[in-house]
Amino acid sequence: MRATKRVKFVDSSTNYNDAHVILNVGGVRFETQRTTLKKLPATRLSKLTPQLSFYDPVLNEYYFDRHPGVFSQILNYYRTGKLHYPTNVCGPLFEDELSYWGIQREEVEPCCWMTYTKHRSTQETLQTLDSLGLDTVRSNMIDLIKKFDWENDLHFMTTGQLPLAKRIRLITWQLFEESRSSIIAKIIAFISMLFILLSITTFVLRTLTIFEVAEYHFVDVYIGDNSTEKTPVQSTERIKIVDGFEIIEWICNSWFAFEIVLRFILAPSKRAFCVSILNWIDFLGTFFFFFTYILYNVFNYDGHQAPLDLLSTISVARMFKLINLHPRLKIITISISNSSRLLVLSMYFCFVVILIAGAALYYAERISNMSKSQIISVMDGIWLALTTVTTVGYGDIVPKSLFGMILGAITTIFGVLIIDLPMPIINEIFDNFNRHLLARQQLPKQRRRVTQ
Amino acid sequence: MRATKRVKFVDSSTNYNDAHVILNVGGVRFETQRTTLKKLPATRLSKLTPQLSFYDPVLNEYYFDRHPGVFSQILNYYRTGKLHYPTNVCGPLFEDELSYWGIQREEVEPCCWMTYTKHRSTQETLQTLDSLGLDTVRSNMIDLIKKFDWENDLHFMTTGQLPLAKRIRLITWQLFEESRSSIIAKIIAFISMLFILLSITTFVLRTLTIFEVAEYHFVDVYIGDNSTEKTPVQSTERIKIVDGFEIIEWICNSWFAFEIVLRFILAPSKRAFCVSILNWIDFLGTFFFFFTYILYNVFNYDGHQAPLDLLSTISVARMFKLINLHPRLKIITISISNSSRLLVLSMYFCFVVILIAGAALYYAERISNMSKSQIISVMDGIWLALTTVTTVGYGDIVPKSLFGMILGAITTIFGVLIIDLPMPIINEIFDNFNRHLLARQQLPKQRRRVTQ
Amino acid sequence: MRATKRVKFVDSSTNYNDAHVILNVGGVRFETQRTTLKKLPATRLSKLTPQLSFYDPVLNEYYFDRHPGVFSQILNYYRTGKLHYPTNVCGPLFEDELSYWGIQREEVEPCCWMTYTKHRSTQETLQTLDSLGLDTVRSNMIDLIKKFDWENDLHFMTTGQLPLAKRIRLITWQLFEESRSSIIAKIIAFISMLFILLSITTFVLRTLTIFEVAEYHFVDVYIGDNSTEKTPVQSTERIKIVDGFEIIEWICNSWFAFEIVLRFILAPSKRAFCVSILNWIDFLGTFFFFFTYILYNVFNYDGHQAPLDLLSTISVARMFKLINLHPRLKIITISISNSSRLLVLSMYFCFVVILIAGAALYYAERISNMSKSQIISVMDGIWLALTTVTTVGYGDIVPKSLFGMILGAITTIFGVLIIDLPMPIINEIFDNFNRHLLARQQLPKQRRRVTQ
Amino acid sequence: MRATKRVKFVDSSTNYNDAHVILNVGGVRFETQRTTLKKLPATRLSKLTPQLSFYDPVLNEYYFDRHPGVFSQILNYYRTGKLHYPTNVCGPLFEDELSYWGIQREEVEPCCWMTYTKHRSTQETLQTLDSLGLDTVRSNMIDLIKKFDWENDLHFMTTGQLPLAKRIRLITWQLFEESRSSIIAKIIAFISMLFILLSITTFVLRTLTIFEVAEYHFVDVYIGDNSTEKTPVQSTERIKIVDGFEIIEWICNSWFAFEIVLRFILAPSKRAFCVSILNWIDFLGTFFFFFTYILYNVFNYDGHQAPLDLLSTISVARMFKLINLHPRLKIITISISNSSRLLVLSMYFCFVVILIAGAALYYAERISNMSKSQIISVMDGIWLALTTVTTVGYGDIVPKSLFGMILGAITTIFGVLIIDLPMPIINEIFDNFNRHLLARQQLPKQRRRVTQ
Ligand SMILES: [K+]
Ligand SMILES: [K+]
Repeated sequence: MRATKRVKFVDSSTNYNDAHVILNVGGVRFETQRTTLKKLPATRLSKLTPQLSFYDPVLNEYYFDRHPGVFSQILNYYRTGKLHYPTNVCGPLFEDELSYWGIQREEVEPCCWMTYTKHRSTQETLQTLDSLGLDTVRSNMIDLIKKFDWENDLHFMTTGQLPLAKRIRLITWQLFEESRSSIIAKIIAFISMLFILLSITTFVLRTLTIFEVAEYHFVDVYIGDNSTEKTPVQSTERIKIVDGFEIIEWICNSWFAFEIVLRFILAPSKRAFCVSILNWIDFLGTFFFFFTYILYNVFNYDGHQAPLDLLSTISVARMFKLINLHPRLKIITISISNSSRLLVLSMYFCFVVILIAGAALYYAERISNMSKSQIISVMDGIWLALTTVTTVGYGDIVPKSLFGMILGAITTIFGVLIIDLPMPIINEIFDNFNRHLLARQQLPKQRRRVTQ
Repeated sequence: MRATKRVKFVDSSTNYNDAHVILNVGGVRFETQRTTLKKLPATRLSKLTPQLSFYDPVLNEYYFDRHPGVFSQILNYYRTGKLHYPTNVCGPLFEDELSYWGIQREEVEPCCWMTYTKHRSTQETLQTLDSLGLDTVRSNMIDLIKKFDWENDLHFMTTGQLPLAKRIRLITWQLFEESRSSIIAKIIAFISMLFILLSITTFVLRTLTIFEVAEYHFVDVYIGDNSTEKTPVQSTERIKIVDGFEIIEWICNSWFAFEIVLRFILAPSKRAFCVSILNWIDFLGTFFFFFTYILYNVFNYDGHQAPLDLLSTISVARMFKLINLHPRLKIITISISNSSRLLVLSMYFCFVVILIAGAALYYAERISNMSKSQIISVMDGIWLALTTVTTVGYGDIVPKSLFGMILGAITTIFGVLIIDLPMPIINEIFDNFNRHLLARQQLPKQRRRVTQ
Repeated sequence: MRATKRVKFVDSSTNYNDAHVILNVGGVRFETQRTTLKKLPATRLSKLTPQLSFYDPVLNEYYFDRHPGVFSQILNYYRTGKLHYPTNVCGPLFEDELSYWGIQREEVEPCCWMTYTKHRSTQETLQTLDSLGLDTVRSNMIDLIKKFDWENDLHFMTTGQLPLAKRIRLITWQLFEESRSSIIAKIIAFISMLFILLSITTFVLRTLTIFEVAEYHFVDVYIGDNSTEKTPVQSTERIKIVDGFEIIEWICNSWFAFEIVLRFILAPSKRAFCVSILNWIDFLGTFFFFFTYILYNVFNYDGHQAPLDLLSTISVARMFKLINLHPRLKIITISISNSSRLLVLSMYFCFVVILIAGAALYYAERISNMSKSQIISVMDGIWLALTTVTTVGYGDIVPKSLFGMILGAITTIFGVLIIDLPMPIINEIFDNFNRHLLARQQLPKQRRRVTQ
Repeated sequence: MRATKRVKFVDSSTNYNDAHVILNVGGVRFETQRTTLKKLPATRLSKLTPQLSFYDPVLNEYYFDRHPGVFSQILNYYRTGKLHYPTNVCGPLFEDELSYWGIQREEVEPCCWMTYTKHRSTQETLQTLDSLGLDTVRSNMIDLIKKFDWENDLHFMTTGQLPLAKRIRLITWQLFEESRSSIIAKIIAFISMLFILLSITTFVLRTLTIFEVAEYHFVDVYIGDNSTEKTPVQSTERIKIVDGFEIIEWICNSWFAFEIVLRFILAPSKRAFCVSILNWIDFLGTFFFFFTYILYNVFNYDGHQAPLDLLSTISVARMFKLINLHPRLKIITISISNSSRLLVLSMYFCFVVILIAGAALYYAERISNMSKSQIISVMDGIWLALTTVTTVGYGDIVPKSLFGMILGAITTIFGVLIIDLPMPIINEIFDNFNRHLLARQQLPKQRRRVTQ
């Protein structure tokens, strides 16, 4: 009525009628000028003509079945030429409206960039969480067949059943890979874990001096009249450890070897299997055990052994396998790997600062008193700078001169600064994952998937 | 009028009339299409018919006495099929509207999960604060009778008064459990606190060397011609402490024993009493005192005594009782226990990293120079890794080789990372409690309860 | 028109007319039921009658010249009985509306407590900033006269001019108290600062061994045949310092004495002067200098002097006076004092944890190996626990046994936790002050005052 | 219609008509009283008269083509006299509206100061990011000609081409300054980087003892009967290093010298070139190398050399040049320099606390037991306080007395507090830069510029 009356009264002044446009967006009337709408050419509102089906000639208005609140923000873009995100609705909702009205969301003003990108990072976080498969306890058959690429199996296509061999492979695979899928799978997972713990305990304990058994070489010693005598000389290189440890290690590694071989044979995609870092840890840990055993006992290698032992450290890394047990531990790893680029850059920055501080400390100490100084090379200076910047402060090397102390003080304060600078960002990445993980867990399972 | 006119004009095109629905929500008119409302079947808006009492045939609109601002968000759900939380009203308000309109709040889009769960965590926080009873100075009789389960007491039901014995029990209970309920209760609390402080001071001081009194065994020593002589030999195992301390300990522990026995007798629920950790600390502290006293003085036990003394450390834990004194100290405890799961996981992660770093440090030092190395077992490597990761850096064990130093540096940086990763989450939990605690204290007491 | 028509049509059903109320709030029409408005008795809307001046009988609506957006939130309170703060307008705006509509803001729902109190804390922060007088460069005469309480001065009331003596006092006061008020005031402030720096430099340097002058007592020593000889014996108690320092100290302290006496004499309120901690530092620093000087040189005191020297440490605290120089340093102090309650509680909590850890460490070391242990009393254990919890880790005392190490590890991790727990709250307090300080500085000076 | 009818009915009561004003803002009608609009004199709304072109006499309303949502907030300013920022739209949008309505944004209420300044700091951040030129890979010719101020070059103006000499200069300049502009530029950047790394490696390694070559002076020693013999005496001052390092240093520094000279010659603005800190590092590093070389080898300088070597530390700072390689490293530097004022103040505060703590620790140790104390001067006390406050805790100086320990403990806790206090602000500055950097990178390049 209101509008019709206006039509009546203002009919003569076609100017006014032409100029004003009434847009009924979801029941709320917006009024603007036609010239305003022409400002953004290739959009839905710039092409309004009375011939359109959603034009109501009686009320002289265009009807759109859209969100009225958000529209006031969109119309403002026409008015001011600046696209701002509203902050009372969430990003995706506004972006849906933008795409309906035919507006490029990249046109957003710099002040709203954060709002613009926030939604994107949320979606990335959610997709990462999705891809971790935290909720999968037991894949269903169809998914598995797809995974193993057996959809075109003849037997399966005719009878709807896989041949026995493939069925066994599937079940065995599930036993080893989906640790919560059945009771037997749980038992296998438990055994595997036990062997890992046993192996690590052995690893730690066997270096303790109380378990060492002195091993002797027998060396011929000439005595008096040309006769030789075998004299035991304690081997300094290779220390024999009590036999119990060796037996335990043999058992553990046999299991690991069996497990890795079986898992490799069963794996649907050999390439995916070989790309996994955890599998490599597993393989190398086992491989080095047998390799060093053969080297020492078959080839009687007697040279420098420490580097070999260092390699066997990798077997401790097997503990990382236990991380799969809990979603939150998974997201710790994900957070660290997601912020790895920032970490590397921070470390590089740290490294430069430590280098400069180290060199400065070295010369500062040299100037003051060369003889008392504990810093006898730039290397020592760098080590001092490192332990200072990280606030570890072992105290094995310490600045002794006043100038060195002042430099040390400055290094300390800079250290705290540089170490802590990227912290909140990494923390936020973890925090973000953690919150969404917790949020997910409060939702029913079927609502958790982001990707359809 | 506006609407009636439209009815008149558009009557012929029943199509248009059917298609459009006008919803008057709290005075604001929303317009949408009937097909839009049919998209969500089992909701209030999908079942609109002109027969409904809130249908106004004159204006051809449905009237709802609800929040118009929030409704635009709800109608948008019908339009786009995506349920987004508005951010200009708080969660519970929106959820009330959702339940009015018959929409499942679990249908919320992933981008709004955080908003969805935020309200829930706030409510949990508030309920936890409520359950701490921070404002309770003195429970009223009725609550107490309910607590003691004496509602069905015959005497009470007939006369409205508890029998004398029960009344005394109630009053005594209140004296010991509600420390701010009366002046006598305050005095008792003060005495109790004094004894705790006295007992702890004794505990700390008695090990100081200045208070030690050497104790001697008399050993028969053979002198010259078959005669023996008693020679004093200082006992290395048990060191006698000056008598004063023993008397103080006796007094304190007598009070503690009296208190715990009385509190147990008076407790309305023996089970709740036995579940409390603070009560166990109290009981064990007192028990071990008497137990060791009897062991030494009655049975003249003379063996290894340190393990027994370690147990007596628990008496220091009595100080935790003093935590009840201040609400903010209570929420520190609550925060730590609420984030205990995350803490355990972080420690586990830490532990794995320390183990790997420790093993690597051990072998790194062995490769370079075995003789100079301070790390003589993996255990030492782990200890070094631990002190490094936590940035404590005692400096008792320090990497000496270049390779060890580099590993130490990496460990340090990783350490800072891992230790600090869960920090903000735990901080936030505490922060959350703290803010709500402060917010509560600004409200009048009767408005503070969340649960009705 | 719309409304009038409705009146016509619905006149018969007085029921409908009575039930519905139209509220025109700032041009936006809200519709609700009369029963809804009766839910909250003593409010503006519950008492609506057509007799009111803002009732428009033609449109059958009540007109209110208020914010329409916020009103939808207020009307919702009537509908649902729950008062929620909107989050698209700031707290004070909503509270103004609440008070207009006669609603108690304490009725706010628990989920909005944070919003409710946020505004209050902002206001407190702003008032604190206001009270610091950061912008005051030079008070104007009228304020000063009010401050000195000279409004009723006879001379001033008759001539409008203060008597000469009072004018001199005022000007001198300004020279010493408002350091930026004039060039002479700046010079005085600069001189004062110089003396402080000089005094502190002297304080630090005079303990360096290079500045020490050995002082000898001459002791009579008996030689051979009854004759005595005076032999110099270096005094171990009192070490004489080179004369230069003494002269500098005399000059500095003379200035300080002059300054404090003058400032006391000029002070408008002696009580306010005596309450200030900075004045006490100033006074005690100067007093102890003269006191010890007299003691040593006049009374020839020769006893234990260290306690006296400890007292003179207070003169270093004079540096705190330099804090007045910068607003941001002032807010560091304010932040720390504002969070002092939380700090004390955290320290108490820390203290309990350290005590327990210390006792446990002591006994853990005793069990394993008493002879090797560096922890010979609970005190040492507490010291170790302290250096560990704070991650300082001096390394002077270190756990040596496995059990001690494990306890140390746990202590470390707990330490980080407890130390860091209250950190973000204190940080936020500082952050809050800092942000508002920066925000203030961007505003024109006359807009900065919060309190009118 | 609605309004026209009203005009009809209320015509008699001109009072009412005069009092009420209807403002049609973008289609939404706001109603207020004329007196309300008169409250703020010099604004657009205070000067409303029916003669204005946007006055619609039929509807008796003023039409404004502006954002209706924001207007409710502006009208509220007229009503309450308090200007609050809305929080559902971003700052700049509101400020555009404010300027349209002729309202001073400085009138904002204190509670909205944060909102008011937030936008400003965002803009500053964006402009800083803009000025870093992170996206510039290769400047186009016209920009370069403008940079070199060759717009008025005769040859260029006539032929549109630069003379050959200038073209060569331009291309060479681009090779050295825009490292990603062409393949040759990349190669030059790579070579430059290699030389930097080589030079730094040499710098670090040459101080290691294994590379030292003992240098001997031959001293005449008198033997027996007046004859002298030349005896080699190891020079303690100047240690000769193996020749290889010297050659490498010569090559590196020759390149650096060549590079800096060439870059200086090519530079469009010599002043801008001389202001750059990185250029100074570059120049001084190279200069000191040649200077010390000449000093030792040409002038055979044999005195105290350490200060000269300290100067050569600056060559390590060349690594800062590598920071230009990555945008995120650039923003670390920017963040630190942006928060330098706060850092300096924090350090000053730290310094005062350390001074006081140091003096207190010195005297505390003296009182208890002077002989055992490791703190023999206030300087030592300050060093202990410093290592404690920063939680580095070297452990070279440690409090030995109970009183010293207690002071140490207090210092520790205060230290953590003071060091961490400004941290979140600095973190936020970095975080802010980092977020906007990431946000930028998600936008198409042509949308990234803030300044037009
Ligand atoms: K340390
Ligand atoms: K440390």
